[in-house]
Amino acid sequence: MTPRLDDRGERWMVRRIQKILGDRTVGDDTAYIPWGKDYLLATTDATTIRTHYPWHSPEAWGWYVAAVNLSDIACKGGQPLGVLLSLLLPRETDTRTVAGIMKGAKKCCARYGTKVAGGDTKEGSEICLIGSAFGRVPKSEFMPRKGARPGDILALTGEVGAAAAGFLALQEGIAGNGLRGEERRLLLPIPRIPEGRAAARTKAVHACTDLSDGLSASVHQLCQPSGVGASIAWEAVPISKALQKRGRADEQWAFHFGGDFELLMAVPPVHFTKVRRAVEKTGTDLTAIGRVVKGRDVELAGRGWRRPLKYGGWEHFRGTG
Amino acid sequence: MTPRLDDRGERWMVRRIQKILGDRTVGDDTAYIPWGKDYLLATTDATTIRTHYPWHSPEAWGWYVAAVNLSDIACKGGQPLGVLLSLLLPRETDTRTVAGIMKGAKKCCARYGTKVAGGDTKEGSEICLIGSAFGRVPKSEFMPRKGARPGDILALTGEVGAAAAGFLALQEGIAGNGLRGEERRLLLPIPRIPEGRAAARTKAVHACTDLSDGLSASVHQLCQPSGVGASIAWEAVPISKALQKRGRADEQWAFHFGGDFELLMAVPPVHFTKVRRAVEKTGTDLTAIGRVVKGRDVELAGRGWRRPLKYGGWEHFRGTG
Repeated sequence: MTPRLDDRGERWMVRRIQKILGDRTVGDDTAYIPWGKDYLLATTDATTIRTHYPWHSPEAWGWYVAAVNLSDIACKGGQPLGVLLSLLLPRETDTRTVAGIMKGAKKCCARYGTKVAGGDTKEGSEICLIGSAFGRVPKSEFMPRKGARPGDILALTGEVGAAAAGFLALQEGIAGNGLRGEERRLLLPIPRIPEGRAAARTKAVHACTDLSDGLSASVHQLCQPSGVGASIAWEAVPISKALQKRGRADEQWAFHFGGDFELLMAVPPVHFTKVRRAVEKTGTDLTAIGRVVKGRDVELAGRGWRRPLKYGGWEHFRGTG
Repeated sequence: MTPRLDDRGERWMVRRIQKILGDRTVGDDTAYIPWGKDYLLATTDATTIRTHYPWHSPEAWGWYVAAVNLSDIACKGGQPLGVLLSLLLPRETDTRTVAGIMKGAKKCCARYGTKVAGGDTKEGSEICLIGSAFGRVPKSEFMPRKGARPGDILALTGEVGAAAAGFLALQEGIAGNGLRGEERRLLLPIPRIPEGRAAARTKAVHACTDLSDGLSASVHQLCQPSGVGASIAWEAVPISKALQKRGRADEQWAFHFGGDFELLMAVPPVHFTKVRRAVEKTGTDLTAIGRVVKGRDVELAGRGWRRPLKYGGWEHFRGTG
């Protein structure tokens, strides 16, 4: 019998697709196509209301789909040039919902210096929002996913766990307490466009990815293509104060939950200060959270302890990490 | 009460979205973004198996979604640079289906000198394939949708009705006669990439669109933004021999059915021969089928008769033309 997607999972299927296409770069954050001295960056992210947006307003749906696509441009150091938005909608959808989605996407694009440049609307059995983003980066500034070398510092913009705190706040809200402010970080993620551009302009970053599936998944995704491992210092990772206040600043919520859309970079130590200063000029912290190491093991180390850091995050079709 | 999509229809919703985005070009075939002396072209088309592919094999699904996106690059005169493919899939989908989709998309891209550069797979309640294509065209060669002027010749690549004949063949096949060869033109549409490039290089084309929704819809779509009308000569329109043999070479099947993905251009008469020769070097006919006229009426004229040509084609959410 032919196996089903829920037997194999998303990561297996992506490797199979890479093999069919004969292109190992497919499945990375973003496609990059040579164009003179630049790369054209192009990426797509599909979302369904059911799996991605249980609590969002239509405006937040629109913001979200634009933001996650722009985040893939950010982590390559790109300047966004536009976002396309495909909507699959049941025919009974009210027109105000559609207008709300477009307004949210427009707002996010405008905030990051770009626009919704086109799209498509078609009939579907559930509401699905499929974004594409494209951007431009000089070849000399491009930050690949592959390229981390042993000894590199692993550096993180911002902090982890803000989206997880928002999720916990929403769960409480549903239980009757109404919504707070924390959930904005879950519902309206921030693509790190200026931070990515600032880091890229230093030409010192060996590799970069974004944190869509959580820190642990992203560390693995950054290391695997380069055949290297990593050691993450538990005490060094900046964890959202909101998550700390909830007493949930643990590995599960801070490292595996996802939704933070920060950038994770591998930077040679000799250039770390330069990159940090460049990023911090945008108003966002850049923190050294660990090192790239030889071998393929990814570990989490505290004071007097170390253990493997699992490849966490959400895996589509199986729903496990 | 807020109106629903099936009250308003797709065309109303597209106009509403243009208003929200403050951009009348959104909803055109393709977004075009200035990049030095060129435009970056970017387009997206969403399809669901249920509404678009009742008979396709997975390979044909993949070909189809790549082809319809490439057709939007072709009608702007662009050279394609890549295709992105987002798949929404129920978790019980068998992995061979996914592999087939990717193989079909790869084959179509390779045939037209480009590749599947990336994509995304997510869980959804039905199989949806969402493609994006991007391309490049010198600004001086770009063929807009708006720009037709009274007196221009309306010129068509290839012929209409081939996809309709394929549809009729498939309907018979389902009744027990098996599949013929005709249905290839429905299932595996041909994006007119070399034809579009050849026409664009003449720098003589005032406006161009593709025929995804049928000839009649495309004539209206080409005329409306320019505030002009058209007169189509019934006898001049090349209609597929396969459709003629079936005795269905009438307005309904030849002009309103859609699925042919030919190019429709407005060309000043003084340059028509030059454009025709350029296109015909690619091996495809270019035929003068009518004229752009003053006013906003679109009519169909035969020997001794003329009548309005309705804005036909499929309209999503309402299913009417």
